[in-house]
Amino acid sequence: MKFEIFTLLPEVFPAYLSASILAKAIETERIAVDLHNIRDWATDKHHITDEPPFGGGGGMVMKAGPVFDAVEAVLGTPPGCPVILMTPQGRVFNQQIAAELARYPRIALICGRYEGFDERIREHLATDEISIGDFVLTGGELPALALIDAVSRNIPGVLGDPAGAYDDSHAQTLLEYPHYTRPAVYREWAVPEVLLSGNHAKIAAWRRQESLKRTRAKRPDLLARAELSAADRKFLAGLEAEDSERSSDN
Amino acid sequence: MKFEIFTLLPEVFPAYLSASILAKAIETERIAVDLHNIRDWATDKHHITDEPPFGGGGGMVMKAGPVFDAVEAVLGTPPGCPVILMTPQGRVFNQQIAAELARYPRIALICGRYEGFDERIREHLATDEISIGDFVLTGGELPALALIDAVSRNIPGVLGDPAGAYDDSHAQTLLEYPHYTRPAVYREWAVPEVLLSGNHAKIAAWRRQESLKRTRAKRPDLLARAELSAADRKFLAGLEAEDSERSSDN
Repeated sequence: MKFEIFTLLPEVFPAYLSASILAKAIETERIAVDLHNIRDWATDKHHITDEPPFGGGGGMVMKAGPVFDAVEAVLGTPPGCPVILMTPQGRVFNQQIAAELARYPRIALICGRYEGFDERIREHLATDEISIGDFVLTGGELPALALIDAVSRNIPGVLGDPAGAYDDSHAQTLLEYPHYTRPAVYREWAVPEVLLSGNHAKIAAWRRQESLKRTRAKRPDLLARAELSAADRKFLAGLEAEDSERSSDN
Repeated sequence: MKFEIFTLLPEVFPAYLSASILAKAIETERIAVDLHNIRDWATDKHHITDEPPFGGGGGMVMKAGPVFDAVEAVLGTPPGCPVILMTPQGRVFNQQIAAELARYPRIALICGRYEGFDERIREHLATDEISIGDFVLTGGELPALALIDAVSRNIPGVLGDPAGAYDDSHAQTLLEYPHYTRPAVYREWAVPEVLLSGNHAKIAAWRRQESLKRTRAKRPDLLARAELSAADRKFLAGLEAEDSERSSDN
């Protein structure tokens, strides 16, 4: 899979791409990341890529010309792959979108200043818009890196363990159960006994219940969307009953 | 404001911190970012920071010892500032949390592998847990950088324009209106005439209505939480009426 990145700050990408599983995915050619500096397509003397907005107001707006020219030079006209604007206006990125994008052989990401793109880029060049959350960042570079990371983990062969991407929080729409590693007692805090029991069925049941408990407490919105078994529902009904007993005691 | 970052990959931070407004915020001492390599506190011969989980299963778990030792060595016991675990289990980061964190003189961020922290770190060391969204990343480094960026923008003096942080999408819980810059006609696409009118009241009204229209279409969840004026409500009621007229025509 090839990621075509259009940015004014190509220099912020290599450090993250050289670390961890992304470096390995690039080395083994499961993914490739090509960085294109939008400024190289600013043809005026000063290589201007942004200007003040029509109608006044603060901030600078990314000009249409250099972005259209960069994308069309690299991808052709019209581009033959998804062209994704990284913008707080987009659909909110999640694990389902990561899996969806992992099926393309090539995607393009346009990183802008968050003061805004010229609207004509959004209307006539982008085919999709993605936000990583409801907060304001200086640019689209961190969102693009997060997207590359999350999407790459869904490409076959990128993770050593084929079950890895599936087990994590959000892959199954439940939060993960608690993890413990050695020592069995750290300071005065011991690992739950069940994890040392060697009883795999009991361990699996405990983990599932902890996942349910934690998702219910912290992210009821995720629990509402999760696929639940009959055993899950019975366990959750038990928690509800405990809660209502507790509140009637007060 | 000082950010204390605990990570196994300190090398991924400087490139982003040297770019754009963060570099300037560091240079003018509005913010400082100290990077601490957790591995420096792994005291065994091989500097081990993670091990397989008790109870079996895939992935590696970050050991409690090196993380406790690193955080306590830098921040004291108990730490005198918020200690935030970057984890998909946390509360979902947004602009309100960014503004809340910007009021502290110092915060610590612990970046882990997303396969998981030893639960005792979460229970006995962290005071807060933050996720940047419902997707799986390889580590907490990009979430930490996103948090540093979004929080810093809320610190007085970091943005040149004091209104900047407030005008952006999400700062006011509405998506931003469309931006346009020169040329007035790009290819065959012209800028909306109102923006060239010089009539500031009309421009402001148009922008507000475009914000409302766009938020209603793309993120009705945000619109439900937004503060709306009587004029906003009237405009939205008009859109509703248009919609129902259109659907009764079919």
